[in-house]
Amino acid sequence: MNYPNGIKREFKNIKTYGNRGMNLEQDLNDTNTYYLNSDIAVIHKKPTPITVNKVDFKSRNDAVIKEAHFIIPSTTDYNGVYKGKYIDFEAKETKSLTSFPLSNIHKHQIEHLKKIYKCDGIGFIIVRFVKLNKTYLLFINDLISFIDNNTRVSIPLSYFEEKAYIIKEGFNPRLDYLKIIDNIIN
Amino acid sequence: MNYPNGIKREFKNIKTYGNRGMNLEQDLNDTNTYYLNSDIAVIHKKPTPITVNKVDFKSRNDAVIKEAHFIIPSTTDYNGVYKGKYIDFEAKETKSLTSFPLSNIHKHQIEHLKKIYKCDGIGFIIVRFVKLNKTYLLFINDLISFIDNNTRVSIPLSYFEEKAYIIKEGFNPRLDYLKIIDNIIN
Repeated sequence: MNYPNGIKREFKNIKTYGNRGMNLEQDLNDTNTYYLNSDIAVIHKKPTPITVNKVDFKSRNDAVIKEAHFIIPSTTDYNGVYKGKYIDFEAKETKSLTSFPLSNIHKHQIEHLKKIYKCDGIGFIIVRFVKLNKTYLLFINDLISFIDNNTRVSIPLSYFEEKAYIIKEGFNPRLDYLKIIDNIIN
Repeated sequence: MNYPNGIKREFKNIKTYGNRGMNLEQDLNDTNTYYLNSDIAVIHKKPTPITVNKVDFKSRNDAVIKEAHFIIPSTTDYNGVYKGKYIDFEAKETKSLTSFPLSNIHKHQIEHLKKIYKCDGIGFIIVRFVKLNKTYLLFINDLISFIDNNTRVSIPLSYFEEKAYIIKEGFNPRLDYLKIIDNIIN
């Protein structure tokens, strides 16, 4: 397959997006904007990686990409700095009531998070169980531990309840996930 | 203008690139690959940011971007983790023999580096004077200090000689810039 999970849905919804409720990505972007404007942290979502095949240089002021392809990301979507520490995570929603399918995260991304862990970075995944209205933060060591000790292709909700941290929703910031990071820094 | 400096050159050279000598970007990519494979650091170049206007979903296995535009990056090109610390930098070449034109770095990127500095991240620029065959690392505080105290639109070579650090070229890693970071961590 030539494009990552979610890309199709994401770009097909460009025009119909407006009427949807807030989703995890929007909540995280709002939260990161709050962190940025408050000088708390600098955490950005990375651009979607593509390979460009054709570019049309119409004028001195405009270049139009005429052919490009999505490529599978080799890293996670979000990274940045908080109190000098390196922060790195992937965020996913699931409609399941009972488990989070690991197919939502590319193998490359898990390898990337393992590398981050080895270099003493703070890596995690944020998973929202949409229908349960619950958002969890699971640190990379607990994610790796699950993968290494299980043959299951999904992480049961009970594992999140046991090992992960609930991110409470608020007004501003929407999802104060750095509060959980404070516990492991201190 | 709708696309960042360098984009036009970069993509126009797609086909003729092969015969050029090593450039700064290639040197840094090789160095970062060495760091990655040696579990020393995880530092990646970010994808070029674009806005996608039209996507053609030809088949289940392929999505082709039919129209997209480059956008001015709001962050630097490189970031990652070294010994738990957040690393963030921009890299530029200049053909000048005497100074580095500040127009090579977008205002957004300097604002970004200032934010990184406030959050205790390690931010810098790497500048190669191609014709002098010298590559410097200048930390963000010295870059800001220059900008705040000068009306000049370029940083003279003498400022690099005084404030920046020379990055020595080697075989592998090509440009061991993390050696310089070690000095400020310790």
